Amino acid sequence: MLKKKNSYKVAVVGATGAVGNCMLSILEERKFPVSELIPLASAKSVGKTLRFQEKDLSVRELKEDSFEGVDIALFSAGGGISKQFSPIAAKSGCVVVDNSSAFRMEADVPLVVPEVNPHALKEHSGIIANPNCSTIQMVVALKPVHERYKIKKVVVSTYQSVSGSGQKAINELEQQTRSQLQGEELECKVYPHPIAFNCLPHIDAFLENGFTKEEMKMVNETHKILEDSSIQVCPTTVRVPVFYSHSEAIYVETENDVAIRELKTLLAESPGLQVVDDPASNTYPQAINAAHKDAVMVGRIRADLSGPKAFHFWVVADNLRKGAALNAIQIAELLVG
Amino acid sequence: MLKKKNSYKVAVVGATGAVGNCMLSILEERKFPVSELIPLASAKSVGKTLRFQEKDLSVRELKEDSFEGVDIALFSAGGGISKQFSPIAAKSGCVVVDNSSAFRMEADVPLVVPEVNPHALKEHSGIIANPNCSTIQMVVALKPVHERYKIKKVVVSTYQSVSGSGQKAINELEQQTRSQLQGEELECKVYPHPIAFNCLPHIDAFLENGFTKEEMKMVNETHKILEDSSIQVCPTTVRVPVFYSHSEAIYVETENDVAIRELKTLLAESPGLQVVDDPASNTYPQAINAAHKDAVMVGRIRADLSGPKAFHFWVVADNLRKGAALNAIQIAELLVG
Repeated sequence: MLKKKNSYKVAVVGATGAVGNCMLSILEERKFPVSELIPLASAKSVGKTLRFQEKDLSVRELKEDSFEGVDIALFSAGGGISKQFSPIAAKSGCVVVDNSSAFRMEADVPLVVPEVNPHALKEHSGIIANPNCSTIQMVVALKPVHERYKIKKVVVSTYQSVSGSGQKAINELEQQTRSQLQGEELECKVYPHPIAFNCLPHIDAFLENGFTKEEMKMVNETHKILEDSSIQVCPTTVRVPVFYSHSEAIYVETENDVAIRELKTLLAESPGLQVVDDPASNTYPQAINAAHKDAVMVGRIRADLSGPKAFHFWVVADNLRKGAALNAIQIAELLVG
Repeated sequence: MLKKKNSYKVAVVGATGAVGNCMLSILEERKFPVSELIPLASAKSVGKTLRFQEKDLSVRELKEDSFEGVDIALFSAGGGISKQFSPIAAKSGCVVVDNSSAFRMEADVPLVVPEVNPHALKEHSGIIANPNCSTIQMVVALKPVHERYKIKKVVVSTYQSVSGSGQKAINELEQQTRSQLQGEELECKVYPHPIAFNCLPHIDAFLENGFTKEEMKMVNETHKILEDSSIQVCPTTVRVPVFYSHSEAIYVETENDVAIRELKTLLAESPGLQVVDDPASNTYPQAINAAHKDAVMVGRIRADLSGPKAFHFWVVADNLRKGAALNAIQIAELLVG
């Protein structure tokens, strides 16, 4: 457990990546009580500097002894790094908030979205998992619905931006787009096929059951966070040529009748959500508007044609912020709060 | 009814548009028996020439007397033009295949996808309607499923390309993309918001019930074409920054148990469909691969986690070809066949 102090020594593992960078800005923006910030990355990033609180910090190589005296370690450097170094960090006495999928389904690791299940933080053994980006924004929107109407089924199709695959994917979309407009051959390094002007129904690896790991994360993590595995989650996850923010088309079936006007009020009053929904003025959540914002935006809220036990909505959030860095720092805020 | 001949005088209304252009190529490719082709468009296109069967044809202005001696008129110039000129064309004795939404839901107008309901062509009063692009590719895939397993519910999220809004939208996506990469302001003329690197959950106008016209087309046209209004269709239609081909994530609930291996065989053997489904080699339908192809491609075929009465698939087709021009010409082929 974290000892209360006035300020904390914070390590960011994967500090030079897209999410790591975002973590540094958010720690600053939200005035997180940082006494010292330690940017950690792989050996090849040593020599780089990162700006934090008007100082240039030298990136240090991640090593077993990197966590001495560290209070909080924010990990976002992939599952392999997390698996290897999170237990070492936890053992050295700091609390880890891990953005990878390495520990999410472990029974003694809380999987937390602060607006949804903050109580899960009460017991942990040094590692707290940050859920997957596509899950986080969905459960922020589903939580008040489940509480009020009891959810039976969720059919979700995602429209996920390339920044979810890191800075190299952002570069790949930009480069492929330029090549396409110039009539040149496209080069694919991050994805197996071109993403420019295309849609890929493929995020993370395929599993035996025909779903991808990304899709199964949405199923399993939703069950764990909402503490209800009776909810049927039916996902298709798709990469689209968008730089920032994930969009999700969500169909929900409920046990109890949903009055749409009441639902809109409920969503508008729920933490972390912003209702952006005025079809008359062509107003609905858009990826380009959600980028760099904290809120999970919901719109296109409408009753299904079958009656009051089903409805649709469109949920958009910045996957680097609420889907990763912001959620991790909100967890850290609960830990120190 | 069309009098059988060796070849036919064919008018294409909206010949200079994206679909019209495509109609000319397909008539050529498929060696449709054309004795004379008459390209019709608005006054502002007069003076342009179009290439057909190695001849340059002058575009003529669409007028009330344009259809004298014409056997078949293929309309693709928007609902307003169709409403005004289709009845005139039909009265003058030609058979109209209309790509607009103007007449689709009229009781005496057949709404036809040749692989699905060719029998509906038997009775008509001079006008036959071509369904909406997003509906056509979906019903080609749903038809064999409904026949074998009886469909109860379909939840569909679309990923629709800009070519569905015509050549000006293709130009807009290209221009906005260039501007974005150069850090310039984006100009929006076709869509109310930028489409470059964005997703817009908004196709056609919003209705009182919160759905868009495009979404309600998918509901109502599916009922009419499959001749079963008990199927619950639950759509969200979304424009994505793709030039050609629409993709659809479709979840289907059935009355009877579906064995996935049997379903794959069924789909592979059904007319108009091509199964593109080998996750192990990252093989699935993609918009960029479906462009300029005739087949409706299906992949990501998998049982839902709830059991054998639900499954998912991913359906992709060229919206200008199977979604519009090709389907219209296949209807004309049935008429002359």
